[in-house]
Amino acid sequence: MKESWSSFDTFEPSFRPLVVIELAKGTKEETREWLTKRIVDKKANGGAQLLVKPLVTENGDQNIYLVGASHFRLLLGAESVGLVKECNDNSMRTFTYSSRKTFKGFADDNHNFLTMAECQYIIKHELENLRAKDEKIIPGYPQAKLYPGKSIVRRLLTNGILVQIFPLHDREELKKLRHTWYGRVKIGYQPLDEIRCYFGETIALYFGFLEYFTFALIPMAVIGIPYYVFAWEDYDKYVMFAAFNLLWSTVILEVWKRFCAVMTYRWGTLLMKRQFEEPRPGFHGVLGINPVTGREEPVYSSIKRQIRIYLVSLPFVCLCLYFSLYVMMIYFDLEQWALDYHKENESNFSSLMLFVPSIIYAVVIEIMNRIYRYAAEFLTSWENHRLESSYQNHLILKVLVFNFLNCFASLFYIAFVLFDMKLLRQSLATLLITSQILNQFAEAFLPYWLQKRHKKRMKKKMYSQKTDTGLSLVEQVNLEKGMGTYFGTFDDYLELFLQFGYVSLFSCVYPLAAVFAVLNNVTEIYSDALKMCRVYKRPFAEPTASIGVWQLAFETMSVISVVTNCILIGMSPQVNALFPDSKMDLILTVALVEHMLLAMKFVMAFVIPDKPRDIQIKLARLEFESLEALKQQDLGLYE
Amino acid sequence: MKESWSSFDTFEPSFRPLVVIELAKGTKEETREWLTKRIVDKKANGGAQLLVKPLVTENGDQNIYLVGASHFRLLLGAESVGLVKECNDNSMRTFTYSSRKTFKGFADDNHNFLTMAECQYIIKHELENLRAKDEKIIPGYPQAKLYPGKSIVRRLLTNGILVQIFPLHDREELKKLRHTWYGRVKIGYQPLDEIRCYFGETIALYFGFLEYFTFALIPMAVIGIPYYVFAWEDYDKYVMFAAFNLLWSTVILEVWKRFCAVMTYRWGTLLMKRQFEEPRPGFHGVLGINPVTGREEPVYSSIKRQIRIYLVSLPFVCLCLYFSLYVMMIYFDLEQWALDYHKENESNFSSLMLFVPSIIYAVVIEIMNRIYRYAAEFLTSWENHRLESSYQNHLILKVLVFNFLNCFASLFYIAFVLFDMKLLRQSLATLLITSQILNQFAEAFLPYWLQKRHKKRMKKKMYSQKTDTGLSLVEQVNLEKGMGTYFGTFDDYLELFLQFGYVSLFSCVYPLAAVFAVLNNVTEIYSDALKMCRVYKRPFAEPTASIGVWQLAFETMSVISVVTNCILIGMSPQVNALFPDSKMDLILTVALVEHMLLAMKFVMAFVIPDKPRDIQIKLARLEFESLEALKQQDLGLYE
Repeated sequence: MKESWSSFDTFEPSFRPLVVIELAKGTKEETREWLTKRIVDKKANGGAQLLVKPLVTENGDQNIYLVGASHFRLLLGAESVGLVKECNDNSMRTFTYSSRKTFKGFADDNHNFLTMAECQYIIKHELENLRAKDEKIIPGYPQAKLYPGKSIVRRLLTNGILVQIFPLHDREELKKLRHTWYGRVKIGYQPLDEIRCYFGETIALYFGFLEYFTFALIPMAVIGIPYYVFAWEDYDKYVMFAAFNLLWSTVILEVWKRFCAVMTYRWGTLLMKRQFEEPRPGFHGVLGINPVTGREEPVYSSIKRQIRIYLVSLPFVCLCLYFSLYVMMIYFDLEQWALDYHKENESNFSSLMLFVPSIIYAVVIEIMNRIYRYAAEFLTSWENHRLESSYQNHLILKVLVFNFLNCFASLFYIAFVLFDMKLLRQSLATLLITSQILNQFAEAFLPYWLQKRHKKRMKKKMYSQKTDTGLSLVEQVNLEKGMGTYFGTFDDYLELFLQFGYVSLFSCVYPLAAVFAVLNNVTEIYSDALKMCRVYKRPFAEPTASIGVWQLAFETMSVISVVTNCILIGMSPQVNALFPDSKMDLILTVALVEHMLLAMKFVMAFVIPDKPRDIQIKLARLEFESLEALKQQDLGLYE
Repeated sequence: MKESWSSFDTFEPSFRPLVVIELAKGTKEETREWLTKRIVDKKANGGAQLLVKPLVTENGDQNIYLVGASHFRLLLGAESVGLVKECNDNSMRTFTYSSRKTFKGFADDNHNFLTMAECQYIIKHELENLRAKDEKIIPGYPQAKLYPGKSIVRRLLTNGILVQIFPLHDREELKKLRHTWYGRVKIGYQPLDEIRCYFGETIALYFGFLEYFTFALIPMAVIGIPYYVFAWEDYDKYVMFAAFNLLWSTVILEVWKRFCAVMTYRWGTLLMKRQFEEPRPGFHGVLGINPVTGREEPVYSSIKRQIRIYLVSLPFVCLCLYFSLYVMMIYFDLEQWALDYHKENESNFSSLMLFVPSIIYAVVIEIMNRIYRYAAEFLTSWENHRLESSYQNHLILKVLVFNFLNCFASLFYIAFVLFDMKLLRQSLATLLITSQILNQFAEAFLPYWLQKRHKKRMKKKMYSQKTDTGLSLVEQVNLEKGMGTYFGTFDDYLELFLQFGYVSLFSCVYPLAAVFAVLNNVTEIYSDALKMCRVYKRPFAEPTASIGVWQLAFETMSVISVVTNCILIGMSPQVNALFPDSKMDLILTVALVEHMLLAMKFVMAFVIPDKPRDIQIKLARLEFESLEALKQQDLGLYE
């Protein structure tokens, strides 16, 4: 079984296009040739050993290439990305080419052993890890410098020679998936395993979380409805609701970890090792030896990165937060001024003026958000994280904090500085409902409508030439390359996170929030599904074992909500009436209750295991086996 | 290299006694024969394949056996306990017999490759894992039931047939160790590596922690001294001191984890896998298959254990805590009554009566502690934990909570119910100093003195026959079997934990506490070293990677101390004077500061990595290698 890469011929008759590379119009011939040669070239020569086929469009431009790979190449790629698959004995193991026969569903002629999404992920991984060897520049572009170990694709992208790389849709599969996902009107679980097969783990995990979170909110919503229906204003009922909410939110976040572990174990990503991730394409550094793997790759001092994080990024973020608070204070001043002006004049103009501060504030916030987002991406990229996951986590944390402040600072101000519960409830309801409606509109239906219009122009042609596969592929590529790009689950999680904030931070003031959240999420599942299937280009699958930094974000939110809810309850007139003589006793009692709730939360988070027992055992078994394998234990010794 | 256990002969001319087994006087001949046969018997026949030699004492009793093992047997044992040793390339690896040549300092004739403590640990492990096969009873003792998989040694111990098993001291080594450890009067670090070689990781880690903790307290002590010298009573100075204390305690606990990781990596225990621990001897259950290792061993349902923990142990502990509080309240009532009585009568008798409540309370507390300790041990044993470490953690947690309450409840009562800061300071000082003096006396000097007396009787004989090694061994065994047994580091850690409580919980009331703690710990190191080397039997080495549940205990204490210190500062008259008009503002400010401190603590704990970077890399490399080994990657494929 000594097949070597060099003995393998890149020519394969049954070329199946998987990934599309779009070069800029007018890319020089020599660059095109060099790039395709590098992609096709043998691994030993530093190539990716993939298959490439130019796609000639109607106007004769040759700037689109289809990339595929032989079955054998894909299996080797699966090994090098560390894919975990199910074995014949139902255990999950890291796939290796030499042990391929032990995996479930493997057969040399079964080209469906790897899902299309996995194949595309492998190709993307190989393309991104196509690194410069001796080249000093990209041929034909003297300004595009290269150095040993620099990702070629990354350099092509930053220099605008490469427009985009995207995986092709599988129209058949997509149709099936659409049907089971949102084709029928039914109440039921989403086909998460199918979503994962088609879109990869990151997106499937988002939909899994969205579904889980929606179900988890239902008890809160059910308990919240009577508060609205019967207009309960009893303090003890509010206290009950808030206490339930706080403990419930801890439980659901802990249980989610277990759910997530079960799912990602089944998908194999729980076992994929983060440490052995290849450096992200944007990572740069001097070529050195990775101390873990002993492989040659760019290395960058972790101390330098720490300095950049703590001495530049952190102060910058703090400054931005301060600035955002400052803007908010100006807004409240303006609001007050508009109110005074209206009181003085009582004219139509003055009542119109009442809306001006809010509009200005909304616009300013939007602008600030965009600028900040751009700055955060720049800074995080500059921090030069080795791993994509660590880059993402740092970016998410930065954007998260800023968005949190922008969203909730005004509510905090109303609640704890103005002490205006009525205004708080009103603002909360307005913010929650309008943001939900706007989001759904801007996120799915608007792009969908635009996409439909764009499609219509091409549709007729497609149907007429449906039988001719060759031309239909050209059509499909042309159609898909014009579709919007899905920039990852960040905005979707952020939306859920802010929603969780609206529901939990002020839950004792506005119990109906959970009801709106549930309603929104049910339609959100459909609109997000529509968005993924119809509006955007197919995204590359990204293996992931958890929702990462979002888990921490949600947990932090639930800790903050203990504090806010306790304060809100302490401020309510009903509770105040209980302590007519001494405000001090009131505050002390509230503080005591708050500390007890916090302690209870931590104990609960500590006591509930993060992984179900059977997953723990399976992981321990794998670890045990890998250690035994390392020992190369001579079992004969004991016989 | 196919040596098998069966080809190995148990006879070895150079028998080196390592462990002593003492049977009860008058143990039946058939039992003695059976036991020695089982110990000597081949592994294939279910024996331990060790060497045994009876030790004939002067009065002709034959109830003491010396256990040893051949060099080859010890190496196989090192593999089965999963010992981690340093390789020639300076990496740490799990020792295997087949890869023995790659380890540093290994040579077939080098019998010092394994330290004596490691050899003794291996023998203990093998003896404890000597399990019943077909025997239904222990021969000669029909009441001592056995079942397949039951640890024989455990059954012998519970039935009183086996009095004790203990490892022998190495007089030469001990002398050397004593000299470097506490023989010279010098300020310097302890020889932790030597301590670890002689006493094992658990004890070395305790001394390491004691030393680290003492050094860590020095800054607090230095800052605390001027408060006493200049009698500073400024609130802002106290606030400064408390704030420093709180953050400092977080830092030292986080940095300790890093220290600990460095040490235990060097010792190899950081890499030893907890999951693959054999079940503890006291563990019982039906014989089944361990789902992780696939080996046959007793199994016990984890749900049953959970039920026992949460439905029996937890309520019992809560009840005990309540009872302890109740007793404390009675004590304060008695105290009050004695005070009133003294005021009324003003006689000699009445002033004597003033001390009665304290004495009664002290005696009652001591009794309660002992009964509770016994109950906790019984309950934890009944919970039937599979692993020794998990048994220890559950026991420690139970005893810890109770001791914490007994020690600090009265101080809390004085501080937060009586609001008597002067009494608090006074009680704190009294408790701290008397407990330290009493501890050192009861723990080391008293047993040392008793031991000296006992030794004197035998000393003369020993010196006169020093040249005769055979007789000297008998003397040594006789001497050591009479020494006290060291019951583990629990009480030592508990003492440090309570000390940490005295220092941190009320640090802003009594800054001098840190000074006393430092002074105490410096002498504690010497008295504990004396205790280990001179007073007690040599304890078995126990590999451990961290201080376990104590880390959590210390961290919890430091969180509680944030709350107590904030309240104490809030209650001080100086701070009260700052808010003359509104108590409410005061409390709100205190609460705000407290929350900020807590948030800062959590962020710090999150940001400081638990392991230094180089250790992280080494661990990742090992994991990577073990995964690669599992893959059995055909590297030729890529050439």
